[in-house]
Order: sequence, then structure tokens, then C-alpha cells
Amino acid sequence: MSSASGERPIGVAVVGAGYWGPNLVRNFQSSAAFRLRWLCDLDISRARRVLGEYSTVAATADLTEVLADPDVDAIAIATPAGTHLKVALEALRAGKHVLVEKPLAATFAEGAQLVEEADRRGLTLMCDHTYCYTPAVLRIRDLVRSGELGELHYLDSVRINLGLVQRDIDVIWDLAPHDLSIIDHVLPEGVRPVAVAAHGADGVGAGRACVAYLTLQLNTGAIAHIHVNWLSPIKVRTTIIGGSKRTLVWDDLNPTTRLAMYDRGVDVSAPEELGADERRDIMVSYRSGDMIAPALVEREALRTMVEEFGTAIRTGSPALTDGRSGLRVLAILEAASKSLAAGGEMVTLEVVK
Amino acid sequence: MSSASGERPIGVAVVGAGYWGPNLVRNFQSSAAFRLRWLCDLDISRARRVLGEYSTVAATADLTEVLADPDVDAIAIATPAGTHLKVALEALRAGKHVLVEKPLAATFAEGAQLVEEADRRGLTLMCDHTYCYTPAVLRIRDLVRSGELGELHYLDSVRINLGLVQRDIDVIWDLAPHDLSIIDHVLPEGVRPVAVAAHGADGVGAGRACVAYLTLQLNTGAIAHIHVNWLSPIKVRTTIIGGSKRTLVWDDLNPTTRLAMYDRGVDVSAPEELGADERRDIMVSYRSGDMIAPALVEREALRTMVEEFGTAIRTGSPALTDGRSGLRVLAILEAASKSLAAGGEMVTLEVVK
Amino acid sequence: MSSASGERPIGVAVVGAGYWGPNLVRNFQSSAAFRLRWLCDLDISRARRVLGEYSTVAATADLTEVLADPDVDAIAIATPAGTHLKVALEALRAGKHVLVEKPLAATFAEGAQLVEEADRRGLTLMCDHTYCYTPAVLRIRDLVRSGELGELHYLDSVRINLGLVQRDIDVIWDLAPHDLSIIDHVLPEGVRPVAVAAHGADGVGAGRACVAYLTLQLNTGAIAHIHVNWLSPIKVRTTIIGGSKRTLVWDDLNPTTRLAMYDRGVDVSAPEELGADERRDIMVSYRSGDMIAPALVEREALRTMVEEFGTAIRTGSPALTDGRSGLRVLAILEAASKSLAAGGEMVTLEVVK
Amino acid sequence: MSSASGERPIGVAVVGAGYWGPNLVRNFQSSAAFRLRWLCDLDISRARRVLGEYSTVAATADLTEVLADPDVDAIAIATPAGTHLKVALEALRAGKHVLVEKPLAATFAEGAQLVEEADRRGLTLMCDHTYCYTPAVLRIRDLVRSGELGELHYLDSVRINLGLVQRDIDVIWDLAPHDLSIIDHVLPEGVRPVAVAAHGADGVGAGRACVAYLTLQLNTGAIAHIHVNWLSPIKVRTTIIGGSKRTLVWDDLNPTTRLAMYDRGVDVSAPEELGADERRDIMVSYRSGDMIAPALVEREALRTMVEEFGTAIRTGSPALTDGRSGLRVLAILEAASKSLAAGGEMVTLEVVK
Repeated sequence: MSSASGERPIGVAVVGAGYWGPNLVRNFQSSAAFRLRWLCDLDISRARRVLGEYSTVAATADLTEVLADPDVDAIAIATPAGTHLKVALEALRAGKHVLVEKPLAATFAEGAQLVEEADRRGLTLMCDHTYCYTPAVLRIRDLVRSGELGELHYLDSVRINLGLVQRDIDVIWDLAPHDLSIIDHVLPEGVRPVAVAAHGADGVGAGRACVAYLTLQLNTGAIAHIHVNWLSPIKVRTTIIGGSKRTLVWDDLNPTTRLAMYDRGVDVSAPEELGADERRDIMVSYRSGDMIAPALVEREALRTMVEEFGTAIRTGSPALTDGRSGLRVLAILEAASKSLAAGGEMVTLEVVK
Repeated sequence: MSSASGERPIGVAVVGAGYWGPNLVRNFQSSAAFRLRWLCDLDISRARRVLGEYSTVAATADLTEVLADPDVDAIAIATPAGTHLKVALEALRAGKHVLVEKPLAATFAEGAQLVEEADRRGLTLMCDHTYCYTPAVLRIRDLVRSGELGELHYLDSVRINLGLVQRDIDVIWDLAPHDLSIIDHVLPEGVRPVAVAAHGADGVGAGRACVAYLTLQLNTGAIAHIHVNWLSPIKVRTTIIGGSKRTLVWDDLNPTTRLAMYDRGVDVSAPEELGADERRDIMVSYRSGDMIAPALVEREALRTMVEEFGTAIRTGSPALTDGRSGLRVLAILEAASKSLAAGGEMVTLEVVK
Repeated sequence: MSSASGERPIGVAVVGAGYWGPNLVRNFQSSAAFRLRWLCDLDISRARRVLGEYSTVAATADLTEVLADPDVDAIAIATPAGTHLKVALEALRAGKHVLVEKPLAATFAEGAQLVEEADRRGLTLMCDHTYCYTPAVLRIRDLVRSGELGELHYLDSVRINLGLVQRDIDVIWDLAPHDLSIIDHVLPEGVRPVAVAAHGADGVGAGRACVAYLTLQLNTGAIAHIHVNWLSPIKVRTTIIGGSKRTLVWDDLNPTTRLAMYDRGVDVSAPEELGADERRDIMVSYRSGDMIAPALVEREALRTMVEEFGTAIRTGSPALTDGRSGLRVLAILEAASKSLAAGGEMVTLEVVK
Repeated sequence: MSSASGERPIGVAVVGAGYWGPNLVRNFQSSAAFRLRWLCDLDISRARRVLGEYSTVAATADLTEVLADPDVDAIAIATPAGTHLKVALEALRAGKHVLVEKPLAATFAEGAQLVEEADRRGLTLMCDHTYCYTPAVLRIRDLVRSGELGELHYLDSVRINLGLVQRDIDVIWDLAPHDLSIIDHVLPEGVRPVAVAAHGADGVGAGRACVAYLTLQLNTGAIAHIHVNWLSPIKVRTTIIGGSKRTLVWDDLNPTTRLAMYDRGVDVSAPEELGADERRDIMVSYRSGDMIAPALVEREALRTMVEEFGTAIRTGSPALTDGRSGLRVLAILEAASKSLAAGGEMVTLEVVK
């Protein structure tokens, strides 16, 4: 394979022209760091349709041809999760850097195999946890990790909407990777989930959970809770992060006030000793400070993600959402499935080294 | 005790002039069915403050005096939960009908004792589950029980806000009675919770849960989930009820569209076989029908509740939220506390006959 | 009349037991500064109904009796606007301080007569512009007058909802007094409206405007615009105040973020010289600063208004919303009616000395 | 020029690679009805940047070359308004069909010249009033024109946001074409604006109105009002259309309830004869019916617009937003400018035949 260092753009191929592939195609095309060489899909007509009639990018159904191309330095995989191991392993073995759509793989064991392979070969393995690259989440990460919120007490994430009921995976595997990767991304050093409980309901006879709730125990005693739902007629994407000093509310559907940071001081009182007026006064004292909505730049997360992939390849240092972060997410997903099957019992997580 | 039948208004006394008592005072005063005789509070100056300087209602600190008054047919209790058993029992034994602020009592056993006592004496025992008397919840009850939604699949209730951290009870006992009584109220005949799991976090060193999540298993396989939270800087009061035919969204903070009913038909497809356009089309097909927001009258729930109390007394038939409904809520609260202490395990509920 | 100085509460009577009177009754009753003596209404049964069956306040249909009572120091008038002149004048001539529901009178000339009479007798004349006493408007007044927003450029106020179509007045006279009194209240020293144009539509064959728009020219070149509407199925109460340094948004229906203050720096560029990306960057630069939502206490405006009335009476200094502010509002209402009749021409305002 | 009939895609060139051009490029590329031949911009490097490094479309700075290409049947113009006349005229004279970004031209006279030229040559002239092709506006058009709302009483449109202060045009010419073209599009046969008044404020020393209000008189006595604003920190895009039977609210920023249709029956009463309760009851009677939010498909408006352009070319019948609709919008814009300069006087509109 050719060197990825120097000024030459990194040659890249996208594998998978389904739902997500076209977004990768568009963003690799608009990045100066990359040169898109191929779009590969088992169904070549689908690949051609995605490229359209005006593109100079080559379509192919043959992954071998792509991997044999010395101008291809990196592979971006947007195929179903069940195929990630096979495709990514082939790519790594061909000496290519690899970006994988979430989840990293179909199982924790498969994900671990990918991490190991990339480690051994000194190649970049990155998971496309797109949300981690939104301006909002990058800012949340700063605020949480810099101690602005104080000690983290709870995190509540709701991601509900009408969604496609999928044939092969349940709503936890479909949607929760977003929340789990965000949590993994923003938690301060030394704070991490240690166990998870999951409850769910089918709801439409789909044979798998369409509505689910995850409760994560953190090693600090804090909890994180996630509500994912394919059946909600209303769309909600709101995360509340409660800290000892401030509480952060991220409402991703409110473009004017996507992030809001609230001061708060809580008083522990005996309500029965208070009249209605006093009671109200005390409740008001919670909100003595102002609310601040930090300004955020508008920038497409995928664009930032693609640049991070480029930087990781060029510098050799792990991406913000490297294979190990993908593996930590897999650990929770697997434990959640186990908990769901066991009626909601708390399941301890595998530790990722 | 004097007869409550005929045209004479029902004589009533309110016990407790704290947070909730003044609301009862105001509503009994404006109801033609009742004649408010006393406001009783251990702190008589608090009772006088509530009545103000222009009232002809008598204030007292002496419950015995109230119970001895033959013009008092009924007692409305708005004291801390720990005192409900004693006050209500005394009132029942004095032959008075009893209305109790939620929760019915401090424990399931105490609540059962009250139900039994009222039964034996043929007196009305009612729990002031105020939310059940809002125009929205009354309408939801109709819609759910008439089968408009089809079979119930899931119910998700969020009740979060900055709230007073209480000295004696946790957030579950403070806020969840609202959600639990609503669920008890709207579930169709034959559908009922059978077990509950609870997870929570303290968050401010209060020594009790300030953020909590309840998951109820229903006997039909459906689930109900409740999020109650004293520490949220934003106020949310939204309940989603997903059925096989329609889904109902109740957003109590949206006066224009408090209730919204969505048609939905869900398709179980294989996403990897679809292009982006087809995938979007299918997701759109979920929302093929229109959304309808039923018109609701504006009417104070407490006013309707007070009238229901009057009707129950006059007719001798159980109130919509009678002692047994209060007891069913207590069964869940107690099981939730047990689950919380046991790290979230699913706890089977006591059955109320 | 008896002296209003010293520690004795100010004796007050409310005249008018219709829509607004009960609110005055309730607030005078809960104020330590006042002693409510009478509720007077031509329909004595209506007055009795408002007082309820538990009140010690006297009801009467006879204003003369009220004005003859030496224990009555002040009169609060909540009758139709057409009667304000007569009732208020009688009260002033009987030596009583006067509070008048908005608008101050039915015409500018009548309002001026009241101001003059109160001046001559050294009595307090106050207009109940309730909104001016909300915590939000009091804070807006501070922010605008302290220069936080910089020079005022525009003010846009929307007050729309389903409202009762009234028999005697149009939507401008019904709703715009709120906006006009708020504008009068918050404008800095030396800044004032000088002319108004009004456009309207009937909409339901009511014989008067049910939807109307007012445009005020200020002496500084700034403009203020008001949209009032009885026919809107959605309720909006939002005011935007644009200044050279900051812009303030007051959304009275958003309890979490009632006030929001935005920094802004505007760039005057030539868009045709810019590409899409640059154009977006520039637009983003408008919002370089954070948004701040100042914390507000929750306090009933009428309670503050009643206290202001008490203070004005005790100190002899003009209330925040004294007769002259009521007169300035009348000047605009009259000019707006003239403009409306003349097809929207700009009409110069009477100057209030 | 070559024939546009038959199965061959229509050859098209986009002129202007600034803010809007790239959207046209993308949509012509994805339409089977068109074959994009050229992207033309005086700054050829800008055209190349828009096409990117993977495109087979030709870039050029030479309009003559484009117009000389026999494979080009149609020209889409996305250059500044001041150049529309020259470019469109050249294109028409070269026998090309023409699509022009809004506004159709810089003046009414210039727009009329284009309409005349296209008429004489039997060519399609279409104005890209994109909003008219959104699913929401197409649905509104159906609802209004089918009589679902009854007789139209008022229309209120708010389009405010932080926007780029432009060097050559004011906020009316920048934003109001959207609202004016929508109004032109949805008004029933025989209903049309006859006069306009405009008020505005500069706000940032830009030398032109940055905040403006238009009031349109319709020939039926109804009014339409438009608020456009470059300086608002909050984004609002809401239109209310009040009819004698129903009122429609279009909130373009609310994806869940973009359209809401309210029943309403209005009562004309005498409020002073009513108590608070009766008054409330009457107000409630306005909202006796339910609200219905019609389901809308999600479809990019530009895609529909491009197809309409194709259909108009193939069939020879006028597009929904043909040159004349562009001209009617220009008539209002010019009259609004005249009104603004004259202090808001009502200016009669030119009639477009």
C-alpha cells in the first residue's frame, strides 16, 4: 500500500451504498484530506444510483478489486453490522485503515478481534459515532470534563421517534449506540459504566423490543438512563446531565437553544413546616442563577468525523471514537441484551483494556 | 352524625393548612354541595392565615372538637402521609366520610386498615388523586377504555421539574403517585400492573432518591415506565400511550395541544434491502393518518374531584378514586421501594381485592 | 375622609364585580396594606356571588353609600370603560384615591379630566396596567433603561389568542392597552412614540376590528409594532426588543425561558461576493455571543400592583403607572382609531404634559 | 435549438454558482427529466468549486458558449436580481426556456419585459418561488381553494431570523418574495391584493430597512400582513390563515405539527353582562371542534419545482409559478418600496394581465 503521509490526499473507498453510505460518499468528496476512489456494493446498480450520472468515482461490486488498488489507503464500511467483521478484517489484512459504521461489530468478541488486528498492524480503526462530532456534543464533552457541571449525578437521554422496525436487530442495537457512544465520549476520566439493566416492550409483534429503557450504573454511584423508542409519534432527542454545580440540557431539536446550562443550588427542607408561599420561595431558590445557552457553530458532524479519520491516519494517534470506544459500546449492548432476556436484572459489563 | 341525604349541603372540615389544604378550602367553599365548617391545623395561626381576615369559617387546632360537631359529615385530610392513618381512622370512627390527600397512607398495611374500616362502617373513603379529574385524563380514560387506541402496548410518563427535596420521603413517594393513580385510572378492565422495578439516584446527598425510574410489567405483557425527578431544570409532563391502533400523547404543558392522537401503521421491513429514498418512504408510512387534537374544556380538576366526593357520599357508590385505588397505588410504591433497595430487581405487587 | 397615614390599613372598596373585579377583591384581601370594606356592583347578587358565602366583606349596589363611608380611603374601579369618568370623578370628589382598570377612560378628553381632578385634589390616581408589574416587565424595564440593550431599534409585540368579541370596543381598545402600557413603561427617558398607524380586519362581521396591527413611530426613528388578534386559534405573547448591543425576547408563555437576551453583532456584506459556506459563516457571526435567560422570581403581578397603589397613597408620589401613563396610552388608542378609519395613515399623537 | 419533446432529457445549464446555484445543480442532477450540461459563473473557479472534483458537468465563465450549445434547452438563472433581465433576455432570445430565481427581475418593468418576450417566443418562463412547492404550501393551497376554510378573513405571515444584511436590497426585497409568492399561490380565484402599505426600520445603520411590515388590502376586504426581519435572534416562520369556517396555522419549524386546522365558531357577546365563569365558557366555545394536523409527505420543494419546470417545458402550459406570478410579486414589492418611502401610505398595485 502507498504511504498516507505527506501532502497527497488519502485514497479512500466506501463499502455499502445503502442508507448511510451516500453520506460518507458526499463527505469524503468534499474533504481535501481524502480522494474518494470507489463506491463498492454487492448490488452495483445501487452503487451507481448513489453516485448518479455525473460522477467520476468508480462503482464496483468487487471488494477484492478495491482492496487490491494501491491508491486506496482506507476503507469506510457502511454495511449491515453482521458483515463488519468480515469486511473490516479483510481490509485490515490488506493494510488499509478502517472506518466502521456503528455498531463496530455484531458482537463484543468480533469487535475485540478487529481492535486486536488493527493494533497488531498499526492501522487506524475508527468507529463512526457521528453524534460525538456534533458541535453540541463536543461542547458538552468540554463542559463535563472541565468540571463546569461539578460532579456528575445523573444523565437522562431520550431518543424517540417513528423509526423503521428492523428485521435483524432490536431498538437497543439500532438507536442506543448513539446515546452510549455520546456517554462514553463525554464522561470524565475515571468515570465509567459498570453495569446495565434493560427493560423493553415489543409493541407491534415484531419479535423484538421496539421500546426500551437502559439504566447504567456508573462506578461513582451516578446513573445514566436511556429511553429508545421506534414507535413514538413525537420526536424527542433530549439529554439532561445533572451535576453538583450545574445541570446541562441538550435539546437537539431546538436550534435556537440546543444547549442550556442552568445553575442550581438545592435546599433540603421540611415541607410540612412551610406554608404555600414559603414553599414556593424555596423552590424558586433552586433557580437563583441565570440560564446560559452557549453559542454553537453550525457544522456538519460527518464532516468533522471525516477530518478526525484523516488526522488519525496521518498522525497514527487514536481517533476520538477509536475501535476501543466502539468496543466499550458493544460491551454495554451485549450486557443490555442479556439483561433484557433476564427480565431486567443488572448485568456487569466486560472491561475493555 | 346528621344525615347527608336530602338537599342540605354536606358539612365538611379540612384538616391540614399546609401546602395543599388551602386548595381544598377554596374548592369546598365554591361548591354548592358542601358547606365548609372548619379548618383544623395543629398550628392554629397557620389555619387563620390560610382563611384570611375576611372569612366566616372557624379555625381550630383541636380535631376532637371538629369530629364532635354534628354538622360535620365529612373530613378532608391534607396532613403529612405519616399522620393519615391516625386522623382518618379517628374520623371514620366518628362516623365521618373521609377524603385523603395522596398517598392514601404511609404504608400498604395502613391503607388496607383504612379501606377495611370504611367498608365496615359503610362510609365513603376517597383518595384525592387530583390529576385523575383533569379534563385531559378523563378524556384519556375514555379513549383508552373505549378501545380507540387498540390494545395497549406501552405507556411512558415523564414528570420532572425542580422540586423541593423532602425530608421524609423520596421522589418516588412524592411524585409517582400522580402517574400511578393516572395509570390505575385509565387502564381498561382486566389490565393491571403485576410487578415493578425501580432505579434511582440521590444526586444531592439528600439521603434518598431525587431521580427515579419505575418500570411496571402489566399482566398483558405491556409495560409502563415512569421518570420522576426533583432535579431537572426543565419542566416536562408528558405521557405517551402506545396502542395497536393509535398512539396518544398528553403534553400537560402545551395548552394548545394538550392531547394529540396519532394514527399509525407499522411495517416490519429489511432495511438493508432498501435505498435511502425507499427507507424514508417507509418511515413516512407510519404517519399516514392525520393527527387529531381533541378539544378539551378548561375546568379545575379539584372542583371536579370535590363534586365526585359529594356524589360518592350522597349515592354511597365508590368514588372514581376510592380507597381501593389509593391502596393499589400504595402497593406499587411499596414494591418500588423494595426494588430500589434491592438494586432494581422486579418485585411482584400485592393484589388489592 | 380619614387619614391614610400611620399604621392603619388603607380602607378600600372595589366597584365592579364582573370579569376583573374578583381579582382585585382577592388581592386587596391578601394585602396587609389594605382593608377591603365593600364590593359594589349595580347587580348586588353578582357582588354577593363573587364574595361567596364565607365572606365578611359587605356587598352593595349603592356607590353613594360606599363613598360616604369614612373608613373608605380608596376606590378601585373595575367597571366598563364608558363608566370610568363618572365613577372615578365621583370618587375623587368624595376625596378618595382612585385605581382604574385599563383603559383609564373612554376617551383622551375624559382621561385628561380625571388626571386634572386628581392633581387639583392632591389624590392618587393610578391605572391598573397589570402587565407592567410582572417580574418579566419589571426586569425588561431595568434592562432597557440601564442601557444593557444599547440604543433601541425596534420593538415587536404579538398578543393573539381566541378572545371574546366585544360588543362595545374593538380588539385595539381591548388588547393593545397591555402592549402600549408596557411600551410606555419600559422606554428610556426621552424616548417616546410620536405617531401611530393602524390597520385591521373585521373577520367575523362583528362590526369592528378583530385583528389589528399598530405601527408606532418613536421620536428616535425606531419603530414599535403591535399585533393584536381575537381570532387566532394559537396563543402567542411574544415581544422582541432589538437594541444596538443586544436583543431581548420575552415569551410570556415559556415559563422556563420567559426572558432571553442575545448578543449580536451585525455585518454589512455583499452576498454576491460570497460562496455558500462563507455566507453561512457570516450569518453565524451574528450569534457569536451566548444567550442568557435571566432568572425571574414568580410573583403575581396584581399583588405588586396593589402594593404600588398603597405606596403611592402613603407617600403621595406618583405610581409607576399613574394617571398620566394611562393618558399616554389613551392618546395612542385614539390616534389608532383615527388611523384605522382613515385607511392606515400615520396620525400624530397628543402630547401629555 | 433542439426539440424538448420526446423522451430525451431536457438539457439545462445553471447560471450563477453563488448561494442558490448549488441547490439547483444538485436537483437538476437528480432529476431524470433533465440533463445538466453546464454550470456558468463569471468566476469560473467558484463554478468549479461548486461542482467539486468528481463531476462530469462542464464549468464555464462564458454565457455565450452556453447559449450556443444546441444541447441546452433551458437556462436556470441564480444570479443577483439586477442581472436577471439581461441574462434571461439573452437566453430567451437564444430560444431557451428560462427559470429565474426570485425575484423575477429588479423592477416591475423589467419583469414585464421578460414575460412579454417569453410570450412572443412561446417559451416557458418560470420563477423559482421554491416555497410554493413545499408539501405544506401545496396542501394549504388545496385547503384554501377548496373552500375548507370558508371565506378568507385574514392572513398573517411572520418570517424572522438573523439574516445577512445585504448591500443592494432591503429586507422586503430579500424575504417578502417568499410570503408574497405563497399568498399569490394559495389565494382562491378572484381574490387578489389591491394595495399595500409598508413600514420599516433600519436598525443597524445599514441604510435600508432590516425590519419591515407589509399590510396588503385584498379586493374582498380581507387583509394580509407580513413581518420580515433580518435582526431577530429567534427564528419564526409561522403563517395564520383565518377563514369564516376554519383557521389554518402553518408553523414551518414544527416538524410534528407543521399544519394545524382549527374549527372555530365565534360569538359576539356583551362581556359586562357576564361573570368570569360565563365569560370563560364563551371563550371556550370558540374551540368547540378538534384540531386536525394533516399528515404531509416529506419531499424537497426544489425537487418538485424542478419537475414542474420540466412539465411546463414539455407541455407548454404555464408553470404554477410562471412569469406572471413572478410579476405579480414584483408589483407588490415595488408598491411596498413606494409606500415605505412615503411613510406607510397605502399604495395601489399595478394590475398584471
